[in-house]
Amino acid sequence: MDMQQCIRNCLDCHRTCLETSMHCLGMGGDHASADHQRLLADCAQICLTSADFMIRGSNFHGRTCGVCAEVCEACAAECESLGGGDQQMTRCARMCRDCAESCRQMAA
Amino acid sequence: MDMQQCIRNCLDCHRTCLETSMHCLGMGGDHASADHQRLLADCAQICLTSADFMIRGSNFHGRTCGVCAEVCEACAAECESLGGGDQQMTRCARMCRDCAESCRQMAA
Amino acid sequence: MDMQQCIRNCLDCHRTCLETSMHCLGMGGDHASADHQRLLADCAQICLTSADFMIRGSNFHGRTCGVCAEVCEACAAECESLGGGDQQMTRCARMCRDCAESCRQMAA
Amino acid sequence: MDMQQCIRNCLDCHRTCLETSMHCLGMGGDHASADHQRLLADCAQICLTSADFMIRGSNFHGRTCGVCAEVCEACAAECESLGGGDQQMTRCARMCRDCAESCRQMAA
Repeated sequence: MDMQQCIRNCLDCHRTCLETSMHCLGMGGDHASADHQRLLADCAQICLTSADFMIRGSNFHGRTCGVCAEVCEACAAECESLGGGDQQMTRCARMCRDCAESCRQMAA
Repeated sequence: MDMQQCIRNCLDCHRTCLETSMHCLGMGGDHASADHQRLLADCAQICLTSADFMIRGSNFHGRTCGVCAEVCEACAAECESLGGGDQQMTRCARMCRDCAESCRQMAA
Repeated sequence: MDMQQCIRNCLDCHRTCLETSMHCLGMGGDHASADHQRLLADCAQICLTSADFMIRGSNFHGRTCGVCAEVCEACAAECESLGGGDQQMTRCARMCRDCAESCRQMAA
Repeated sequence: MDMQQCIRNCLDCHRTCLETSMHCLGMGGDHASADHQRLLADCAQICLTSADFMIRGSNFHGRTCGVCAEVCEACAAECESLGGGDQQMTRCARMCRDCAESCRQMAA
């Protein structure tokens, strides 16, 4: 997995988490809880930050990617746990796992 | 109202809208609706964008401030309408109004 | 041109402007001037903001897209004027024009 | 040092790094180099990200503050090294050190 793919994953995951946030607010209940919404917002923001660090060629991109991998992994787990077969939740969980995997490789 | 005050208002309003978003998710009901959460997220983001344009001394700061004033005004109105005496909602509505007023002056 | 394409253009233009900023700092001279770097930073930021407003389904996306179209158009013109056949500058100018065009349609 | 002070430091440091970036582009030479401008952009962005994580009450704020402390420390060192008595550079170095110190405490 190269850096170009990781940048694409981070930007795609930023977008997917914003979409999922709106989707979950529409569902209500635990999907609209502060805990879940906060995690989606965290994930969208750290994905963008990591993408931008890589785009700039920053010496610190391994550090932001390390945090991004952790947040993405947590978001994937929560989307799976809450999802119950919902299509957007499944898509978000998969996107977050892919992004976590590529960020782990950049952080290594 | 000078630009320095407008920058401060925009950064303060960015922060207040993020705080209010979390507060409202904890309240649930209409406070946790997609419509209200979207408006708070819009307001937090355009306030930051307008602040950064002014900090950079951008030629386009009048244009971002113009949009920011509109979004802040809408957010203030919604926080007042939903608030019902809640302290954080009252504080957010006032902050958004102050920010809208200073942004209108920068846009003029 | 639909909203999905405009979101993609805005995210691609965000990335291209960050890349071009680093490229131009390496070139030095007018490419590393405050004026050019400021415009690239403005363009990267308003593209992201407009993308996020559309992703959230914001009522104000037409307003952010309107500002984005103006900034992108100015950035395209400056990249063409400074470019002198440089490949990254040509690519950035084209990306900014495409993004401006799709944002104008969303703003209309 | 409490979290409220760390949030203020991060938002102030975000602003100071953007101001310093423009100031340094005006100075030219090493101040306008890709390396220095990239570090200022990194610092401005991770400061904002860390501030927002704290404002949302994120479980991951210790992780973003950890990265922020590292980037701020590097930025402070470079501003001191390049500064040569320039007032904005001295101010930026001091702001970055203060932010690094409060972020280290949040990360601990």
